[in-house]
Amino acid sequence: MSDSGEALARADSDRGMLTLTAPEYEPTLLRAIGDWLPRSGRTPVLVCGMAGARQGWHEAAYLPVPARLDDLARGAASPPLDDPRLDVRLLPGLCQRRDADGRTFDVMRGEETQLAGLAAREPHFSGLACLPGTHAKWARLEAGAVTRFKTFLTGELYRLLVSQSVLRYSLGEDDLNAPDCREAFVDAVREIEAAPESFSARLFGLRAQDLLDDALPVGDARSARLAARLSGLAIGLELAGVRQALSMERSVTLIGTETLSDRYALALQALGHAVQRLDGSAAVLAGLGLARASLPT
Amino acid sequence: MSDSGEALARADSDRGMLTLTAPEYEPTLLRAIGDWLPRSGRTPVLVCGMAGARQGWHEAAYLPVPARLDDLARGAASPPLDDPRLDVRLLPGLCQRRDADGRTFDVMRGEETQLAGLAAREPHFSGLACLPGTHAKWARLEAGAVTRFKTFLTGELYRLLVSQSVLRYSLGEDDLNAPDCREAFVDAVREIEAAPESFSARLFGLRAQDLLDDALPVGDARSARLAARLSGLAIGLELAGVRQALSMERSVTLIGTETLSDRYALALQALGHAVQRLDGSAAVLAGLGLARASLPT
Repeated sequence: MSDSGEALARADSDRGMLTLTAPEYEPTLLRAIGDWLPRSGRTPVLVCGMAGARQGWHEAAYLPVPARLDDLARGAASPPLDDPRLDVRLLPGLCQRRDADGRTFDVMRGEETQLAGLAAREPHFSGLACLPGTHAKWARLEAGAVTRFKTFLTGELYRLLVSQSVLRYSLGEDDLNAPDCREAFVDAVREIEAAPESFSARLFGLRAQDLLDDALPVGDARSARLAARLSGLAIGLELAGVRQALSMERSVTLIGTETLSDRYALALQALGHAVQRLDGSAAVLAGLGLARASLPT
Repeated sequence: MSDSGEALARADSDRGMLTLTAPEYEPTLLRAIGDWLPRSGRTPVLVCGMAGARQGWHEAAYLPVPARLDDLARGAASPPLDDPRLDVRLLPGLCQRRDADGRTFDVMRGEETQLAGLAAREPHFSGLACLPGTHAKWARLEAGAVTRFKTFLTGELYRLLVSQSVLRYSLGEDDLNAPDCREAFVDAVREIEAAPESFSARLFGLRAQDLLDDALPVGDARSARLAARLSGLAIGLELAGVRQALSMERSVTLIGTETLSDRYALALQALGHAVQRLDGSAAVLAGLGLARASLPT
Protein backbone atom coordinates (compact mmCIF):
# COMPACT_ATOMS: atom_id res chain seq x y z
CA MET A 1 0.00 0.00 0.00
CA SER A 2 1.28 3.48 -0.81
CA ASP A 3 1.41 6.17 1.86
CA SER A 4 -1.76 7.63 0.37
CA GLY A 5 -3.55 4.31 0.86
CA GLU A 6 -3.53 3.05 -2.71
CA ALA A 7 -2.91 -0.63 -3.41
CA LEU A 8 0.32 -0.99 -5.41
CA ALA A 9 -0.14 -4.68 -6.21
CA ARG A 10 -2.61 -7.39 -5.45
CA ALA A 11 -2.40 -11.16 -4.99
CA ASP A 12 -5.12 -13.65 -4.08
CA SER A 13 -5.31 -17.17 -2.71
CA ASP A 14 -8.36 -19.30 -2.03
CA ARG A 15 -6.68 -20.91 0.98
CA GLY A 16 -7.91 -19.93 4.42
CA MET A 17 -8.87 -21.11 7.89
CA LEU A 18 -10.95 -24.03 6.58
CA THR A 19 -8.11 -25.51 4.52
CA LEU A 20 -4.85 -24.44 6.24
CA THR A 21 -3.14 -25.72 9.38
CA ALA A 22 -1.20 -23.15 11.40
CA PRO A 23 2.26 -24.05 9.97
CA GLU A 24 0.92 -23.76 6.41
CA TYR A 25 0.05 -20.05 6.67
CA GLU A 26 3.59 -18.72 6.28
CA PRO A 27 4.44 -20.67 3.09
CA THR A 28 1.01 -19.82 1.68
CA LEU A 29 1.65 -16.13 2.36
CA LEU A 30 5.11 -16.36 0.81
CA ARG A 31 3.75 -17.97 -2.34
CA ALA A 32 1.43 -14.99 -2.73
CA ILE A 33 3.73 -12.07 -1.83
CA GLY A 34 7.28 -13.50 -1.57
CA ASP A 35 8.37 -11.77 -4.77
CA TRP A 36 7.44 -8.39 -3.34
CA LEU A 37 9.76 -8.62 -0.33
CA PRO A 38 13.14 -6.82 -0.30
CA ARG A 39 16.08 -9.15 0.35
CA SER A 40 17.06 -7.37 3.50
CA GLY A 41 15.07 -5.87 6.34
CA ARG A 42 11.76 -6.97 7.77
CA THR A 43 8.62 -5.96 5.88
CA PRO A 44 5.56 -5.34 8.04
CA VAL A 45 2.59 -7.50 6.97
CA LEU A 46 -0.76 -6.63 8.55
CA VAL A 47 -3.38 -9.39 8.47
CA CYS A 48 -7.07 -9.20 9.35
CA GLY A 49 -9.77 -11.87 9.43
CA MET A 50 -9.83 -15.54 10.33
CA ALA A 51 -6.02 -15.98 10.30
CA GLY A 52 -6.20 -14.50 13.82
CA ALA A 53 -8.81 -17.01 15.02
CA ARG A 54 -7.93 -19.74 17.49
CA GLN A 55 -8.25 -22.29 14.66
CA GLY A 56 -6.27 -20.04 12.29
CA TRP A 57 -2.59 -19.11 12.13
CA HIS A 58 -2.13 -17.77 15.65
CA GLU A 59 -4.71 -16.36 17.98
CA ALA A 60 -5.23 -12.61 18.23
CA ALA A 61 -7.70 -12.49 21.11
CA TYR A 62 -10.95 -10.59 20.55
CA LEU A 63 -11.06 -7.04 21.85
CA PRO A 64 -14.23 -6.42 23.85
CA VAL A 65 -16.60 -3.62 22.89
CA PRO A 66 -16.66 -0.71 23.34
CA ALA A 67 -13.53 -0.64 21.19
CA ARG A 68 -11.90 2.30 19.43
CA LEU A 69 -11.39 1.61 15.74
CA ASP A 70 -8.17 3.64 15.49
CA ASP A 71 -6.55 1.38 18.03
CA LEU A 72 -7.14 -2.18 16.76
CA ALA A 73 -3.37 -2.67 16.47
CA ARG A 74 -3.03 -2.74 20.27
CA GLY A 75 -4.57 -6.22 20.12
CA ALA A 76 -2.36 -7.49 17.27
CA ALA A 77 -0.56 -10.80 17.73
CA SER A 78 2.71 -11.95 16.12
CA PRO A 79 2.87 -15.55 14.92
CA PRO A 80 6.19 -17.45 15.08
CA LEU A 81 7.96 -17.01 11.71
CA ASP A 82 10.74 -18.73 9.79
CA ASP A 83 11.44 -16.15 7.10
CA PRO A 84 13.51 -13.20 8.46
CA ARG A 85 12.03 -10.89 5.84
CA LEU A 86 8.56 -11.02 7.44
CA ASP A 87 7.11 -9.06 10.37
CA VAL A 88 3.51 -10.32 10.54
CA ARG A 89 0.87 -8.79 12.80
CA LEU A 90 -2.55 -10.41 13.03
CA LEU A 91 -5.29 -7.94 13.91
CA PRO A 92 -7.86 -8.97 16.54
CA GLY A 93 -11.60 -9.34 16.07
CA LEU A 94 -14.19 -7.82 18.40
CA CYS A 95 -16.37 -9.59 20.93
CA GLN A 96 -19.39 -8.63 22.94
CA ARG A 97 -20.68 -10.27 26.12
CA ARG A 98 -24.19 -10.41 27.51
CA ASP A 99 -24.88 -7.44 29.74
CA ALA A 100 -27.58 -5.45 31.45
CA ASP A 101 -27.85 -3.02 28.53
CA GLY A 102 -29.31 -5.71 26.28
CA ARG A 103 -26.09 -6.69 24.53
CA THR A 104 -25.81 -10.38 23.74
CA PHE A 105 -22.88 -12.67 22.94
CA ASP A 106 -21.42 -11.82 19.56
CA VAL A 107 -18.14 -11.92 17.65
CA MET A 108 -16.64 -10.50 14.46
CA ARG A 109 -13.31 -11.06 12.67
CA GLY A 110 -12.48 -9.06 9.59
CA GLU A 111 -15.47 -6.73 9.69
CA GLU A 112 -13.81 -4.64 12.45
CA THR A 113 -11.13 -3.73 9.90
CA GLN A 114 -13.79 -2.62 7.42
CA LEU A 115 -15.35 -0.54 10.18
CA ALA A 116 -11.89 0.90 10.84
CA GLY A 117 -11.89 1.87 7.17
CA LEU A 118 -15.00 3.92 7.84
CA ALA A 119 -13.29 5.49 10.86
CA ALA A 120 -10.22 6.23 8.71
CA ARG A 121 -12.41 8.43 6.53
CA GLU A 122 -14.45 9.91 9.37
CA PRO A 123 -12.45 9.61 12.61
CA HIS A 124 -15.34 10.64 14.85
CA PHE A 125 -18.07 8.81 12.99
CA SER A 126 -21.23 8.07 14.96
CA GLY A 127 -24.05 6.05 13.46
CA LEU A 128 -25.20 2.69 12.26
CA ALA A 129 -23.16 0.56 9.84
CA CYS A 130 -24.34 -2.58 8.08
CA LEU A 131 -21.98 -5.15 6.54
CA PRO A 132 -24.09 -7.57 4.46
CA GLY A 133 -22.84 -11.09 3.91
CA THR A 134 -22.94 -14.72 5.02
CA HIS A 135 -23.04 -13.49 8.60
CA ALA A 136 -24.33 -9.95 8.22
CA LYS A 137 -23.16 -7.49 10.88
CA TRP A 138 -24.80 -4.33 12.18
CA ALA A 139 -22.62 -2.09 14.31
CA ARG A 140 -23.30 1.05 16.27
CA LEU A 141 -20.39 3.47 16.22
CA GLU A 142 -19.99 6.37 18.61
CA ALA A 143 -17.18 8.87 18.03
CA GLY A 144 -15.05 6.32 16.20
CA ALA A 145 -15.66 3.42 18.59
CA VAL A 146 -17.87 0.33 18.20
CA THR A 147 -20.22 0.31 21.17
CA ARG A 148 -22.41 -2.67 20.24
CA PHE A 149 -23.08 -4.98 17.32
CA LYS A 150 -25.36 -7.76 16.18
CA THR A 151 -24.77 -10.59 13.69
CA PHE A 152 -27.50 -12.17 11.56
CA LEU A 153 -27.24 -15.53 9.81
CA THR A 154 -28.96 -14.01 6.76
CA GLY A 155 -26.62 -15.02 3.95
CA GLU A 156 -26.06 -18.53 5.23
CA LEU A 157 -29.78 -19.08 5.85
CA TYR A 158 -30.54 -17.91 2.32
CA ARG A 159 -27.90 -20.14 0.77
CA LEU A 160 -29.07 -23.21 2.70
CA LEU A 161 -32.69 -22.63 1.72
CA VAL A 162 -31.84 -22.06 -1.94
CA SER A 163 -29.58 -25.06 -2.31
CA GLN A 164 -30.75 -27.66 0.21
CA SER A 165 -34.40 -27.17 1.17
CA VAL A 166 -37.66 -28.18 -0.51
CA LEU A 167 -37.73 -24.64 -1.90
CA ARG A 168 -34.94 -25.47 -4.33
CA TYR A 169 -37.53 -27.02 -6.65
CA SER A 170 -39.24 -23.64 -6.97
CA LEU A 171 -36.35 -21.21 -7.11
CA GLY A 172 -34.40 -19.94 -10.08
CA GLU A 173 -31.74 -17.37 -10.73
CA ASP A 174 -31.96 -14.52 -8.26
CA ASP A 175 -31.66 -11.47 -10.48
CA LEU A 176 -33.41 -8.30 -9.35
CA ASN A 177 -33.12 -6.90 -12.86
CA ALA A 178 -35.52 -9.55 -14.18
CA PRO A 179 -39.10 -8.31 -14.71
CA ASP A 180 -41.10 -7.64 -11.53
CA CYS A 181 -38.35 -9.08 -9.33
CA ARG A 182 -37.54 -5.81 -7.58
CA GLU A 183 -41.20 -5.49 -6.64
CA ALA A 184 -41.34 -9.09 -5.40
CA PHE A 185 -38.18 -8.49 -3.34
CA VAL A 186 -39.40 -5.23 -1.83
CA ASP A 187 -42.87 -6.61 -1.07
CA ALA A 188 -41.30 -9.51 0.80
CA VAL A 189 -38.99 -7.19 2.77
CA ARG A 190 -41.97 -5.10 3.85
CA GLU A 191 -44.10 -8.13 4.76
CA ILE A 192 -41.52 -9.71 7.01
CA GLU A 193 -40.28 -6.49 8.53
CA ALA A 194 -43.88 -5.87 9.61
CA ALA A 195 -44.58 -9.48 10.65
CA PRO A 196 -41.33 -11.34 11.40
CA GLU A 197 -43.28 -14.05 13.24
CA SER A 198 -44.53 -15.27 9.86
CA PHE A 199 -41.02 -15.95 8.48
CA SER A 200 -41.11 -19.74 8.65
CA ALA A 201 -44.64 -19.98 7.22
CA ARG A 202 -43.78 -17.57 4.40
CA LEU A 203 -40.87 -19.84 3.48
CA PHE A 204 -43.16 -22.81 2.93
CA GLY A 205 -45.58 -20.40 1.29
CA LEU A 206 -43.09 -19.94 -1.57
CA ARG A 207 -43.44 -23.63 -2.38
CA ALA A 208 -47.23 -23.52 -2.08
CA GLN A 209 -47.40 -20.41 -4.23
CA ASP A 210 -45.35 -22.16 -6.90
CA LEU A 211 -47.83 -25.05 -6.87
CA LEU A 212 -51.00 -22.97 -6.79
CA ASP A 213 -50.63 -19.38 -7.96
CA ASP A 214 -52.04 -18.96 -11.46
CA ALA A 215 -51.19 -15.27 -11.43
CA LEU A 216 -47.45 -15.94 -11.48
CA PRO A 217 -45.67 -16.22 -14.83
CA VAL A 218 -44.38 -19.66 -15.79
CA GLY A 219 -40.86 -21.00 -16.34
CA ASP A 220 -37.76 -18.96 -15.51
CA ALA A 221 -39.79 -15.82 -14.80
CA ARG A 222 -41.72 -17.73 -12.14
CA SER A 223 -38.67 -19.16 -10.39
CA ALA A 224 -36.82 -15.83 -10.58
CA ARG A 225 -39.79 -14.09 -8.94
CA LEU A 226 -39.86 -16.63 -6.12
CA ALA A 227 -36.08 -16.39 -5.61
CA ALA A 228 -36.35 -12.61 -5.33
CA ARG A 229 -39.11 -13.09 -2.80
CA LEU A 230 -36.97 -15.47 -0.71
CA SER A 231 -34.13 -12.93 -0.68
CA GLY A 232 -36.60 -10.29 0.49
CA LEU A 233 -37.86 -12.54 3.28
CA ALA A 234 -34.33 -13.21 4.55
CA ILE A 235 -33.22 -9.58 4.43
CA GLY A 236 -36.58 -8.40 5.80
CA LEU A 237 -36.15 -10.62 8.85
CA GLU A 238 -32.75 -9.02 9.45
CA LEU A 239 -34.20 -5.52 9.14
CA ALA A 240 -36.96 -6.44 11.60
CA GLY A 241 -34.18 -7.45 13.98
CA VAL A 242 -32.60 -3.97 13.86
CA ARG A 243 -35.89 -2.07 13.91
CA GLN A 244 -35.14 -0.46 17.26
CA ALA A 245 -31.66 0.67 16.21
CA LEU A 246 -33.03 1.93 12.88
CA SER A 247 -35.72 3.93 14.65
CA MET A 248 -32.97 6.10 16.14
CA GLU A 249 -31.08 6.72 12.89
CA ARG A 250 -32.04 8.50 9.72
CA SER A 251 -29.48 6.68 7.68
CA VAL A 252 -27.29 3.61 7.46
CA THR A 253 -23.75 3.19 6.11
CA LEU A 254 -23.50 0.05 3.98
CA ILE A 255 -20.07 -1.57 3.67
CA GLY A 256 -19.83 -4.46 1.22
CA THR A 257 -19.86 -5.63 -2.37
CA GLU A 258 -21.79 -3.63 -4.94
CA THR A 259 -24.33 -6.40 -5.56
CA LEU A 260 -25.25 -7.00 -1.95
CA SER A 261 -25.16 -3.31 -1.07
CA ASP A 262 -27.56 -2.61 -3.95
CA ARG A 263 -29.98 -5.11 -2.50
CA TYR A 264 -29.74 -3.77 1.04
CA ALA A 265 -30.06 -0.21 -0.21
CA LEU A 266 -33.27 -1.15 -2.01
CA ALA A 267 -34.65 -2.79 1.12
CA LEU A 268 -33.68 0.05 3.44
CA GLN A 269 -35.00 2.71 1.09
CA ALA A 270 -38.31 0.83 0.87
CA LEU A 271 -38.56 1.20 4.64
CA GLY A 272 -37.83 4.92 4.42
CA HIS A 273 -34.13 4.98 5.33
CA ALA A 274 -31.29 6.77 3.58
CA VAL A 275 -28.04 4.95 2.86
CA GLN A 276 -24.38 5.87 2.40
CA ARG A 277 -22.12 3.32 0.80
CA LEU A 278 -18.52 2.28 1.19
CA ASP A 279 -17.00 -0.41 -0.99
CA GLY A 280 -16.00 -3.43 1.10
CA SER A 281 -12.54 -3.88 -0.44
CA ALA A 282 -11.73 -0.19 -0.17
CA ALA A 283 -12.84 -0.31 3.47
CA VAL A 284 -10.44 -3.16 4.25
CA LEU A 285 -7.50 -1.27 2.74
CA ALA A 286 -8.37 1.94 4.57
CA GLY A 287 -8.81 -0.01 7.82
CA LEU A 288 -5.44 -1.72 7.43
CA GLY A 289 -3.89 1.69 6.76
CA LEU A 290 -5.38 3.07 9.97
CA ALA A 291 -4.11 0.07 11.92
CA ARG A 292 -0.63 0.44 10.44
CA ALA A 293 -0.48 4.03 11.66
CA SER A 294 -1.06 2.92 15.25
CA LEU A 295 1.02 -0.25 15.23
CA PRO A 296 3.18 -0.66 18.37
CA THR A 297 6.80 -0.92 17.26
CA MET B 1 -57.69 -53.06 8.94
CA SER B 2 -60.45 -54.73 10.98
CA ASP B 3 -63.95 -53.27 11.07
CA SER B 4 -63.11 -51.85 14.49
CA GLY B 5 -60.13 -50.02 13.01
CA GLU B 6 -57.32 -52.24 14.27
CA ALA B 7 -54.34 -52.95 12.01
CA LEU B 8 -54.25 -56.71 11.25
CA ALA B 9 -50.83 -56.65 9.62
CA ARG B 10 -48.18 -54.10 8.75
CA ALA B 11 -45.61 -53.79 5.99
CA ASP B 12 -43.13 -50.98 5.29
CA SER B 13 -41.06 -49.78 2.39
CA ASP B 14 -38.65 -46.87 2.23
CA ARG B 15 -39.55 -46.15 -1.40
CA GLY B 16 -41.63 -43.08 -2.12
CA MET B 17 -42.13 -40.06 -4.36
CA LEU B 18 -38.45 -39.13 -4.37
CA THR B 19 -37.28 -42.55 -5.59
CA LEU B 20 -40.20 -44.02 -7.61
CA THR B 21 -41.45 -43.27 -11.10
CA ALA B 22 -45.20 -43.62 -11.64
CA PRO B 23 -45.05 -47.15 -13.17
CA GLU B 24 -42.94 -48.39 -10.25
CA TYR B 25 -45.63 -47.78 -7.63
CA GLU B 26 -47.78 -50.82 -8.39
CA PRO B 27 -44.93 -53.39 -8.24
CA THR B 28 -43.59 -51.70 -5.10
CA LEU B 29 -47.02 -51.96 -3.48
CA LEU B 30 -47.33 -55.60 -4.54
CA ARG B 31 -43.95 -56.46 -3.03
CA ALA B 32 -45.21 -55.08 0.27
CA ILE B 33 -48.77 -56.44 0.40
CA GLY B 34 -49.11 -58.93 -2.50
CA ASP B 35 -49.22 -61.89 -0.12
CA TRP B 36 -52.24 -60.45 1.67
CA LEU B 37 -54.46 -60.31 -1.42
CA PRO B 38 -57.12 -62.98 -2.03
CA ARG B 39 -56.75 -64.73 -5.43
CA SER B 40 -60.12 -63.57 -6.61
CA GLY B 41 -61.99 -60.33 -6.21
CA ARG B 42 -60.65 -56.79 -6.03
CA THR B 43 -59.29 -55.62 -2.69
CA PRO B 44 -59.75 -51.92 -1.95
CA VAL B 45 -56.43 -50.21 -1.16
CA LEU B 46 -56.67 -46.69 0.23
CA VAL B 47 -53.54 -44.57 -0.11
CA CYS B 48 -52.77 -41.19 1.43
CA GLY B 49 -49.75 -38.92 1.10
CA MET B 50 -47.37 -38.10 -1.71
CA ALA B 51 -48.40 -41.01 -3.97
CA GLY B 52 -51.30 -38.72 -4.96
CA ALA B 53 -49.01 -35.82 -5.87
CA ARG B 54 -48.49 -34.77 -9.47
CA GLN B 55 -44.93 -36.17 -9.29
CA GLY B 56 -46.21 -39.32 -7.53
CA TRP B 57 -48.20 -42.30 -8.78
CA HIS B 58 -51.22 -40.52 -10.19
CA GLU B 59 -52.54 -37.11 -9.29
CA ALA B 60 -55.38 -36.77 -6.80
CA ALA B 61 -56.04 -33.03 -7.09
CA TYR B 62 -56.03 -31.00 -3.89
CA LEU B 63 -59.41 -30.28 -2.32
CA PRO B 64 -59.73 -26.60 -1.44
CA VAL B 65 -60.53 -25.54 2.11
CA PRO B 66 -62.98 -25.36 3.74
CA ALA B 67 -63.10 -29.15 3.39
CA ARG B 68 -65.08 -31.66 5.44
CA LEU B 69 -62.81 -34.38 6.85
CA ASP B 70 -65.44 -37.14 6.60
CA ASP B 71 -65.59 -36.65 2.88
CA LEU B 72 -61.97 -36.80 1.65
CA ALA B 73 -62.84 -39.85 -0.45
CA ARG B 74 -64.87 -37.71 -2.86
CA GLY B 75 -61.54 -36.43 -4.17
CA ALA B 76 -59.93 -39.85 -4.50
CA ALA B 77 -58.25 -40.77 -7.79
CA SER B 78 -57.75 -44.24 -9.28
CA PRO B 79 -54.43 -44.94 -10.98
CA PRO B 80 -54.26 -47.29 -13.98
CA LEU B 81 -53.51 -50.82 -12.70
CA ASP B 82 -52.22 -54.10 -14.13
CA ASP B 83 -53.09 -56.48 -11.31
CA PRO B 84 -56.82 -57.37 -11.30
CA ARG B 85 -56.73 -58.00 -7.55
CA LEU B 86 -56.17 -54.31 -6.77
CA ASP B 87 -58.64 -51.45 -6.44
CA VAL B 88 -56.43 -48.49 -5.49
CA ARG B 89 -57.80 -45.10 -4.43
CA LEU B 90 -55.41 -42.25 -3.82
CA LEU B 91 -56.74 -39.72 -1.33
CA PRO B 92 -56.36 -36.02 -2.15
CA GLY B 93 -54.47 -33.42 -0.17
CA LEU B 94 -55.86 -30.02 0.78
CA CYS B 95 -55.00 -26.65 -0.65
CA GLN B 96 -55.65 -23.09 0.36
CA ARG B 97 -55.54 -19.99 -1.81
CA ARG B 98 -54.84 -16.39 -0.89
CA ASP B 99 -58.04 -14.62 0.08
CA ALA B 100 -59.46 -11.56 1.74
CA ASP B 101 -59.75 -13.34 5.10
CA GLY B 102 -55.97 -13.50 5.45
CA ARG B 103 -55.50 -17.02 4.17
CA THR B 104 -52.35 -17.54 2.13
CA PHE B 105 -51.24 -20.17 -0.38
CA ASP B 106 -50.70 -23.50 1.34
CA VAL B 107 -50.86 -27.24 0.69
CA MET B 108 -50.87 -30.49 2.64
CA ARG B 109 -50.73 -34.15 1.59
CA GLY B 110 -51.01 -36.86 4.20
CA GLU B 111 -51.73 -34.62 7.17
CA GLU B 112 -55.39 -34.26 6.04
CA THR B 113 -55.77 -38.00 6.69
CA GLN B 114 -54.36 -37.58 10.19
CA LEU B 115 -56.81 -34.75 10.73
CA ALA B 116 -59.56 -37.06 9.47
CA GLY B 117 -58.41 -39.45 12.21
CA LEU B 118 -59.19 -36.75 14.73
CA ALA B 119 -62.59 -36.24 13.08
CA ALA B 120 -63.19 -40.00 13.20
CA ARG B 121 -62.95 -39.82 16.98
CA GLU B 122 -64.80 -36.53 17.35
CA PRO B 123 -66.99 -35.98 14.26
CA HIS B 124 -67.87 -32.39 15.12
CA PHE B 125 -64.47 -31.39 16.44
CA SER B 126 -63.77 -27.67 16.48
CA GLY B 127 -60.39 -26.32 17.54
CA LEU B 128 -56.75 -26.02 16.70
CA ALA B 129 -54.62 -29.00 15.69
CA CYS B 130 -50.84 -29.04 15.32
CA LEU B 131 -48.93 -31.68 13.36
CA PRO B 132 -45.21 -31.24 14.12
CA GLY B 133 -42.64 -32.37 11.56
CA THR B 134 -40.38 -31.39 8.68
CA HIS B 135 -43.14 -29.12 7.44
CA ALA B 136 -45.21 -28.56 10.56
CA LYS B 137 -48.93 -27.90 9.98
CA TRP B 138 -51.41 -25.99 12.08
CA ALA B 139 -55.07 -26.43 11.15
CA ARG B 140 -58.25 -24.82 12.38
CA LEU B 141 -61.17 -27.23 12.42
CA GLU B 142 -64.79 -26.19 12.67
CA ALA B 143 -67.46 -28.86 13.13
CA GLY B 144 -65.34 -31.52 11.45
CA ALA B 145 -64.10 -29.38 8.56
CA VAL B 146 -60.69 -27.75 7.97
CA THR B 147 -61.33 -24.06 7.48
CA ARG B 148 -57.74 -22.80 7.27
CA PHE B 149 -54.22 -24.02 7.82
CA LYS B 150 -50.62 -22.84 7.91
CA THR B 151 -47.38 -24.71 7.24
CA PHE B 152 -44.05 -23.87 8.88
CA LEU B 153 -40.66 -25.00 7.64
CA THR B 154 -39.60 -25.68 11.25
CA GLY B 155 -38.24 -29.23 11.01
CA GLU B 156 -36.40 -28.65 7.77
CA LEU B 157 -34.92 -25.37 8.98
CA TYR B 158 -33.73 -27.07 12.15
CA ARG B 159 -32.17 -29.97 10.28
CA LEU B 160 -30.35 -27.68 7.82
CA LEU B 161 -28.95 -25.53 10.62
CA VAL B 162 -27.83 -28.54 12.67
CA SER B 163 -26.16 -30.36 9.80
CA GLN B 164 -25.02 -27.72 7.30
CA SER B 165 -24.53 -24.32 8.94
CA VAL B 166 -21.68 -22.82 10.95
CA LEU B 167 -23.68 -23.83 14.05
CA ARG B 168 -22.80 -27.46 13.49
CA TYR B 169 -19.45 -26.86 15.17
CA SER B 170 -21.26 -25.92 18.38
CA LEU B 171 -24.15 -28.37 18.51
CA GLY B 172 -24.31 -31.83 20.03
CA GLU B 173 -26.95 -34.45 20.64
CA ASP B 174 -30.35 -32.87 21.13
CA ASP B 175 -31.69 -34.67 24.22
CA LEU B 176 -34.07 -32.75 26.44
CA ASN B 177 -33.45 -35.28 29.22
CA ALA B 178 -29.84 -34.12 29.53
CA PRO B 179 -29.18 -31.76 32.48
CA ASP B 180 -30.60 -28.23 32.10
CA CYS B 181 -31.64 -28.88 28.49
CA ARG B 182 -35.38 -28.59 29.14
CA GLU B 183 -34.76 -25.18 30.69
CA ALA B 184 -32.55 -24.09 27.78
CA PHE B 185 -35.25 -25.25 25.33
CA VAL B 186 -38.10 -23.53 27.15
CA ASP B 187 -36.15 -20.29 27.65
CA ALA B 188 -35.45 -20.17 23.91
CA VAL B 189 -39.11 -20.83 23.07
CA ARG B 190 -40.19 -17.95 25.31
CA GLU B 191 -37.52 -15.58 23.96
CA ILE B 192 -38.42 -16.06 20.32
CA GLU B 193 -42.15 -16.22 20.84
CA ALA B 194 -41.86 -12.81 22.47
CA ALA B 195 -39.34 -11.41 19.94
CA PRO B 196 -39.50 -13.34 16.67
CA GLU B 197 -37.63 -10.53 14.89
CA SER B 198 -34.48 -11.63 16.70
CA PHE B 199 -34.53 -15.17 15.26
CA SER B 200 -31.67 -14.80 12.79
CA ALA B 201 -29.42 -12.96 15.29
CA ARG B 202 -30.16 -15.55 18.00
CA LEU B 203 -29.01 -18.24 15.60
CA PHE B 204 -25.57 -16.67 15.21
CA GLY B 205 -25.69 -15.97 18.95
CA LEU B 206 -25.49 -19.72 19.58
CA ARG B 207 -22.09 -19.77 17.88
CA ALA B 208 -20.92 -16.67 19.73
CA GLN B 209 -22.16 -18.05 23.05
CA ASP B 210 -20.18 -21.23 22.42
CA LEU B 211 -17.04 -19.14 21.83
CA LEU B 212 -17.52 -16.76 24.76
CA ASP B 213 -19.83 -17.95 27.52
CA ASP B 214 -17.80 -19.11 30.53
CA ALA B 215 -20.99 -19.95 32.42
CA LEU B 216 -21.84 -22.84 30.08
CA PRO B 217 -20.56 -26.32 30.93
CA VAL B 218 -17.89 -27.74 28.65
CA GLY B 219 -17.86 -30.75 26.30
CA ASP B 220 -21.02 -32.71 25.52
CA ALA B 221 -23.07 -30.87 28.13
CA ARG B 222 -22.25 -27.59 26.38
CA SER B 223 -23.17 -28.77 22.90
CA ALA B 224 -26.34 -30.48 24.16
CA ARG B 225 -27.43 -27.25 25.84
CA LEU B 226 -26.89 -25.27 22.64
CA ALA B 227 -28.75 -27.89 20.56
CA ALA B 228 -31.72 -27.71 22.93
CA ARG B 229 -31.63 -23.96 22.59
CA LEU B 230 -31.67 -24.15 18.77
CA SER B 231 -34.69 -26.45 18.89
CA GLY B 232 -36.42 -23.95 21.17
CA LEU B 233 -35.66 -21.10 18.79
CA ALA B 234 -37.11 -22.99 15.80
CA ILE B 235 -40.27 -24.11 17.60
CA GLY B 236 -40.63 -20.73 19.31
CA LEU B 237 -40.65 -19.01 15.90
CA GLU B 238 -43.46 -21.33 14.81
CA LEU B 239 -45.46 -20.60 17.96
CA ALA B 240 -45.01 -16.86 17.39
CA GLY B 241 -46.50 -17.44 13.94
CA VAL B 242 -49.69 -18.93 15.39
CA ARG B 243 -49.97 -16.45 18.25
CA GLN B 244 -53.22 -15.00 16.97
CA ALA B 245 -54.84 -18.42 16.49
CA LEU B 246 -53.59 -19.54 19.91
CA SER B 247 -55.07 -16.47 21.55
CA MET B 248 -58.52 -17.74 20.61
CA GLU B 249 -58.01 -21.31 21.90
CA ARG B 250 -57.40 -22.65 25.37
CA SER B 251 -55.89 -25.84 24.08
CA VAL B 252 -54.21 -27.50 21.12
CA THR B 253 -54.49 -31.06 19.79
CA LEU B 254 -51.06 -32.42 18.91
CA ILE B 255 -50.91 -35.17 16.28
CA GLY B 256 -47.51 -36.76 15.75
CA THR B 257 -44.75 -38.96 17.09
CA GLU B 258 -44.25 -39.21 20.83
CA THR B 259 -40.85 -37.48 20.76
CA LEU B 260 -41.91 -34.46 18.77
CA SER B 261 -45.25 -34.16 20.56
CA ASP B 262 -43.42 -34.17 23.91
CA ARG B 263 -41.33 -31.26 22.74
CA TYR B 264 -44.28 -29.26 21.42
CA ALA B 265 -46.28 -30.01 24.58
CA LEU B 266 -43.44 -28.62 26.67
CA ALA B 267 -43.27 -25.48 24.53
CA LEU B 268 -47.03 -24.92 24.51
CA GLN B 269 -47.38 -25.52 28.22
CA ALA B 270 -44.59 -23.01 28.86
CA LEU B 271 -46.73 -20.45 27.07
CA GLY B 272 -49.77 -21.35 29.15
CA HIS B 273 -51.63 -23.64 26.76
CA ALA B 274 -53.17 -27.04 27.43
CA VAL B 275 -52.58 -29.90 25.00
CA GLN B 276 -54.40 -33.06 23.97
CA ARG B 277 -52.45 -35.68 22.11
CA LEU B 278 -53.18 -38.15 19.35
CA ASP B 279 -50.54 -40.58 18.11
CA GLY B 280 -49.66 -39.85 14.48
CA SER B 281 -49.80 -43.46 13.27
CA ALA B 282 -53.10 -44.13 15.02
CA ALA B 283 -54.46 -40.95 13.45
CA VAL B 284 -53.54 -42.14 9.94
CA LEU B 285 -55.32 -45.47 10.46
CA ALA B 286 -58.42 -43.81 11.90
CA GLY B 287 -58.43 -41.32 9.03
CA LEU B 288 -58.16 -44.06 6.41
CA GLY B 289 -61.02 -45.87 8.15
CA LEU B 290 -63.18 -42.77 7.96
CA ALA B 291 -62.33 -42.32 4.27
CA ARG B 292 -63.15 -45.97 3.54
CA ALA B 293 -66.60 -45.50 5.04
CA SER B 294 -67.37 -42.69 2.60
CA LEU B 295 -65.69 -44.14 -0.49
CA PRO B 296 -67.78 -43.78 -3.67
CA THR B 297 -68.38 -47.28 -5.05
